[in-house]
Amino acid sequence: MEKQVKQWPAADFILQNEAARRLYEEYAKDQPIIDYHCHLPPDEIAGNKKFENLTQIWLKGDHYKWRAMRALGVPEALITGAASDHDKFMAWAKQVPKTVRNPLFHWTAMELANPFGIHQLLDETSGAAIYETCNSLLQTAAFSTQALIRQRKVEIVGTTDDPCDTLLPHQNFARQNAGFRMLPSFRPDPVLNVTHQGAWLAYLQKLEAVTGRSIKQLDDLLNALDDRIRYFHEHGCRVADLGIVQLPDLQQQRDRKQVEQEFRLLVSTKNYQVQYPDALSGCIVLHLCRQYKKYGWVQQFHVGAIRNLNHRLLTQLGADIGVDSIGDDQQAMRLARFLNELDKTDELSKTILYNLNPALNEVFASMAGNFNDGSCVGKIQFGSGWWFLDQKDGMEKQLNALSTIGILSAFIGMTTDSRSFLSYSRHDYFRRILCNLVGTDMEKGLLPMDFSWMGEIITAICYTNAKNYFNFP
Amino acid sequence: MEKQVKQWPAADFILQNEAARRLYEEYAKDQPIIDYHCHLPPDEIAGNKKFENLTQIWLKGDHYKWRAMRALGVPEALITGAASDHDKFMAWAKQVPKTVRNPLFHWTAMELANPFGIHQLLDETSGAAIYETCNSLLQTAAFSTQALIRQRKVEIVGTTDDPCDTLLPHQNFARQNAGFRMLPSFRPDPVLNVTHQGAWLAYLQKLEAVTGRSIKQLDDLLNALDDRIRYFHEHGCRVADLGIVQLPDLQQQRDRKQVEQEFRLLVSTKNYQVQYPDALSGCIVLHLCRQYKKYGWVQQFHVGAIRNLNHRLLTQLGADIGVDSIGDDQQAMRLARFLNELDKTDELSKTILYNLNPALNEVFASMAGNFNDGSCVGKIQFGSGWWFLDQKDGMEKQLNALSTIGILSAFIGMTTDSRSFLSYSRHDYFRRILCNLVGTDMEKGLLPMDFSWMGEIITAICYTNAKNYFNFP
Amino acid sequence: MEKQVKQWPAADFILQNEAARRLYEEYAKDQPIIDYHCHLPPDEIAGNKKFENLTQIWLKGDHYKWRAMRALGVPEALITGAASDHDKFMAWAKQVPKTVRNPLFHWTAMELANPFGIHQLLDETSGAAIYETCNSLLQTAAFSTQALIRQRKVEIVGTTDDPCDTLLPHQNFARQNAGFRMLPSFRPDPVLNVTHQGAWLAYLQKLEAVTGRSIKQLDDLLNALDDRIRYFHEHGCRVADLGIVQLPDLQQQRDRKQVEQEFRLLVSTKNYQVQYPDALSGCIVLHLCRQYKKYGWVQQFHVGAIRNLNHRLLTQLGADIGVDSIGDDQQAMRLARFLNELDKTDELSKTILYNLNPALNEVFASMAGNFNDGSCVGKIQFGSGWWFLDQKDGMEKQLNALSTIGILSAFIGMTTDSRSFLSYSRHDYFRRILCNLVGTDMEKGLLPMDFSWMGEIITAICYTNAKNYFNFP
Repeated sequence: MEKQVKQWPAADFILQNEAARRLYEEYAKDQPIIDYHCHLPPDEIAGNKKFENLTQIWLKGDHYKWRAMRALGVPEALITGAASDHDKFMAWAKQVPKTVRNPLFHWTAMELANPFGIHQLLDETSGAAIYETCNSLLQTAAFSTQALIRQRKVEIVGTTDDPCDTLLPHQNFARQNAGFRMLPSFRPDPVLNVTHQGAWLAYLQKLEAVTGRSIKQLDDLLNALDDRIRYFHEHGCRVADLGIVQLPDLQQQRDRKQVEQEFRLLVSTKNYQVQYPDALSGCIVLHLCRQYKKYGWVQQFHVGAIRNLNHRLLTQLGADIGVDSIGDDQQAMRLARFLNELDKTDELSKTILYNLNPALNEVFASMAGNFNDGSCVGKIQFGSGWWFLDQKDGMEKQLNALSTIGILSAFIGMTTDSRSFLSYSRHDYFRRILCNLVGTDMEKGLLPMDFSWMGEIITAICYTNAKNYFNFP
Repeated sequence: MEKQVKQWPAADFILQNEAARRLYEEYAKDQPIIDYHCHLPPDEIAGNKKFENLTQIWLKGDHYKWRAMRALGVPEALITGAASDHDKFMAWAKQVPKTVRNPLFHWTAMELANPFGIHQLLDETSGAAIYETCNSLLQTAAFSTQALIRQRKVEIVGTTDDPCDTLLPHQNFARQNAGFRMLPSFRPDPVLNVTHQGAWLAYLQKLEAVTGRSIKQLDDLLNALDDRIRYFHEHGCRVADLGIVQLPDLQQQRDRKQVEQEFRLLVSTKNYQVQYPDALSGCIVLHLCRQYKKYGWVQQFHVGAIRNLNHRLLTQLGADIGVDSIGDDQQAMRLARFLNELDKTDELSKTILYNLNPALNEVFASMAGNFNDGSCVGKIQFGSGWWFLDQKDGMEKQLNALSTIGILSAFIGMTTDSRSFLSYSRHDYFRRILCNLVGTDMEKGLLPMDFSWMGEIITAICYTNAKNYFNFP
Repeated sequence: MEKQVKQWPAADFILQNEAARRLYEEYAKDQPIIDYHCHLPPDEIAGNKKFENLTQIWLKGDHYKWRAMRALGVPEALITGAASDHDKFMAWAKQVPKTVRNPLFHWTAMELANPFGIHQLLDETSGAAIYETCNSLLQTAAFSTQALIRQRKVEIVGTTDDPCDTLLPHQNFARQNAGFRMLPSFRPDPVLNVTHQGAWLAYLQKLEAVTGRSIKQLDDLLNALDDRIRYFHEHGCRVADLGIVQLPDLQQQRDRKQVEQEFRLLVSTKNYQVQYPDALSGCIVLHLCRQYKKYGWVQQFHVGAIRNLNHRLLTQLGADIGVDSIGDDQQAMRLARFLNELDKTDELSKTILYNLNPALNEVFASMAGNFNDGSCVGKIQFGSGWWFLDQKDGMEKQLNALSTIGILSAFIGMTTDSRSFLSYSRHDYFRRILCNLVGTDMEKGLLPMDFSWMGEIITAICYTNAKNYFNFP
């Protein structure tokens, strides 16, 4: 069908009133970006890659779009399968008008508008021309990975890296003069996966290879991890991350000797099933966190995602293909005991807690408040809306819970957490949503109509707080 | 007190702006209804029953009203007890003004307006006259059950039926020319109730009687259920339903022989307490679901209700009398394992997941997305706001979670889930709420101001999607 | 920075439209207050204390402010430490502009406006003058504790008292002619703390001392508690309270003899770990509740708070210092079984259920509805937004859940639950929020535009319902 709307989205998209528009224009829009946590591929940044076409940069690897297409009855061949890039793009273009009210509908418009300058609705009618236009642009210097990042005023790109990673792309990039920095983050998820012995042992072998250590004892593992932390630190890493369903249950107490004994059994016994997985993984992750503190790192915890739930697609396509979900596990007491364990010996780093279940927003916001110690502004952060919650409704709920139960002005704000070079529009999305919330409160008389005051807080959340929070070299 | 309002509710009730009003008028209001899941009594439809008075059609059996009256201090005699129908009606009329902001207040007005044409507020002053007027109308041909259904343009009435049911009313009805269809749904809850041996055995006896099978082994039961599924299918059934607190925990694994052994013990041992209830009930329900898939049925799961919590009233009045509640049990991983178990062998039917706890809306919306397979639009549905959530706030939360985490345009929309012939107003309620949400987004610039586009989606959710989703004969 | 706003907050603060303003002005603003549950110190009321300065009355003991200051990087010395009252006040004043969108920002303005008459923004510029002005006022007769309470038209102050308390301040106060009543509440938390033997035994010793009984058997304890209930009743107590993470799990069944046996072991065995804590605590709390019923008391349950999570600060500062949190434990079935156990023998008192986790609002609202019995209006109350939820967003969520799933008009409304004599502004806050919700519904056509009708409901929630609900002497 012929769409009646020609200019989309509007310049004041999201911004519902004058105060919101003014906050955005004067205090948010032009701020640089500290993208302290993303999943951009370091080699594609270091290599200053250009993309062949819009499918390559926009659809390939975007599990959000894949889920939407599956829900809309698109065959897998046109999503992740054998179809051509052109056909995949047109399959997506056709579905876009059916994604209304999903963040994809907004993201699509915002990402076409910037950087491509296209303010036309994408659908099956406009798709072919848009594909051609964008593909041509993608061949120009302004659309290389580094150019795309620079165009958004990104100062820091915080990639997410495996402890065994060589960080060669980061080293290569550091020798360039790209106009922004790319720094690694340390994400040791596989080493905590003690209930899957096969994958765990395979990972230990990788660690042995990269550190030159033989790992037979628990201490061997911890020493190897220390090596990698030091290596990462030397390459500019100042941030760690952990993705986990729940933090280890520290009530599952075993003394150190017992944990060491079970470690030896797990390393040496075929098909060994760990008896006290939380005691073992808890021991490892506490050790890691204590190291982070020594190095002055910020630690992040992404909890609550349950993953790879569709085994048919997992087998067919591998992990991270859009069959993950929001979990409903309890989080409060595990978080409390874990943070307390580190805090009581003053080994609790600055910490960002990301929550995937919006029903737990207030739980997270209140938990963060228990472990601030006055040592800095916003030591324990309730992180921005993550994954499924990285959308208007999710962000507003996170911002409201943080506001009412924590301190909004201390918030370090948005991070893309994205695999896509086009996702920097989400910072703009976040800024509009933030300005709209605060501006609306001002218009309603819930906040004073004082633009320099409120604007300073907006700028802090968009940029300054994150800049001050991290100890980037 | 004398009420100051004369025309209530207004024609544009719920609809807060011009876009909402236009969507409703042009794309929603006049759509037919596919009421794919309700609890209307088939014999009262087949018999084209007329009701003696407003209490009989409106208050009798309405546990929503009963709960409200108990909360307002009305004695049980005037609710479910020995009082006359007139007195019960007046007792309700007197309380209506005290139900403001509860859905009952809106439903009451909407149900008096349509079909009775009464736009006056119901209270103790107006009650007597309204009672007389409605009672007279109820004696006319336009207020028989079939006429009430036709007047709402209902195309399908999907009743909810016990597997042992003869479906005689459905057979009787099928020979009539009523202008709509009434089709049964298969709801085997009692057969899964393995932890209550007495009730369970009694139910097996009913199954034995209706199938002529002797049930001594697990396979006997499954064969008997297969008989009834075939019988239901032959009588037009294309939908199954299950009401359960949580889906069986498929982590409680027993091999088939062990389940069969426990089945024999449960059948033959007095006061036997099942050791692995989820292994047994899981085995039964998975078998049922696989059968549904063979027949091309849609399966529904209503999870999360905790029932009959007040034993005094349960003993006094029986089940379904308004002492049920929203549970806070975990749902995510049980749903995931259950759907995956069926999906991995391609035995997962189209599925509708109904959630009773609004805190889990996002969990359900994300879970549904894991098992869409591109075979059709919206294969796995996050169902409309159910029971306690079948109201403006509940519907808006469901629609927002579905929109942001799933695909709104693929939604099959509202179903009454009601025991009352006057509840079709809830479809109108839903349509107004839906149009208001989408229209408001248009007015705010969050959606393009394109009425044919948005209107098509509205129509699809109100009618077309449901029409296309089910394989009704 | 110089603030641009001079009059803050506005007279119509919170009230967004004409209907809201009219409801507030005509039906809410001037109602008296029944503060049926607070933590004001009885001796400071009986002694008609005056406060030396603003820090003493406003910051000392206010863990909300402490948490905010810690989050904003203020050193503990300026919060709870050795700094002077002046310096602590200025440290707080400096942070106030950074608390925007937190309830503290609104409370601060409202509490300066009333009773101090200051409509200026508090910050580091205005702080010194405000401190002086308020300190002078605090020396006047109008700012004694009793004067502050009278000025708010408080009719009842319901303090929260330990069963061992002598209630001497209440007796002293009863002999005064203060213009309002102060009545105790019975809060027996320590006696249920059976998993901490040391603290529990110490508490039993206190009970022995105050009752003159020797407590060796379970019945000794119950008799001692009965003594104290009688004593409290004689001193005007008509309300009990209990703060607990979850109600005891009544599925943990032991017969009376077994509970008695374990009681004896706990009393007599060093370092005894209770095997069936819920059986023992459940037995005690059920006994208490049955006594409450005999005396016609109202019982309150505050569930879901997890406390003292930061052991470093707990050790340093003690309990109630701002390191508590919102729990995510399950509540529904424990509540159901507990209320049912009392209801089935008609021993269920009027009950107020307070919820700390907003994700459970609908669970609580629906649970309350199961145990209304028509004996009075609103027998089982879903209590007002508590602690972290005692703010605009939290109150709105509670009011909306109560409205849609329960009966708003039967609500007994707000209680301060506060330790501060300046917190009566929270009643005004609540009233504005309530009027804004109802007025906005009227403006939107969701409720009839009938002020006497809606106004009567507003007045009932602000004052009349609470006045009628309790059996105060």
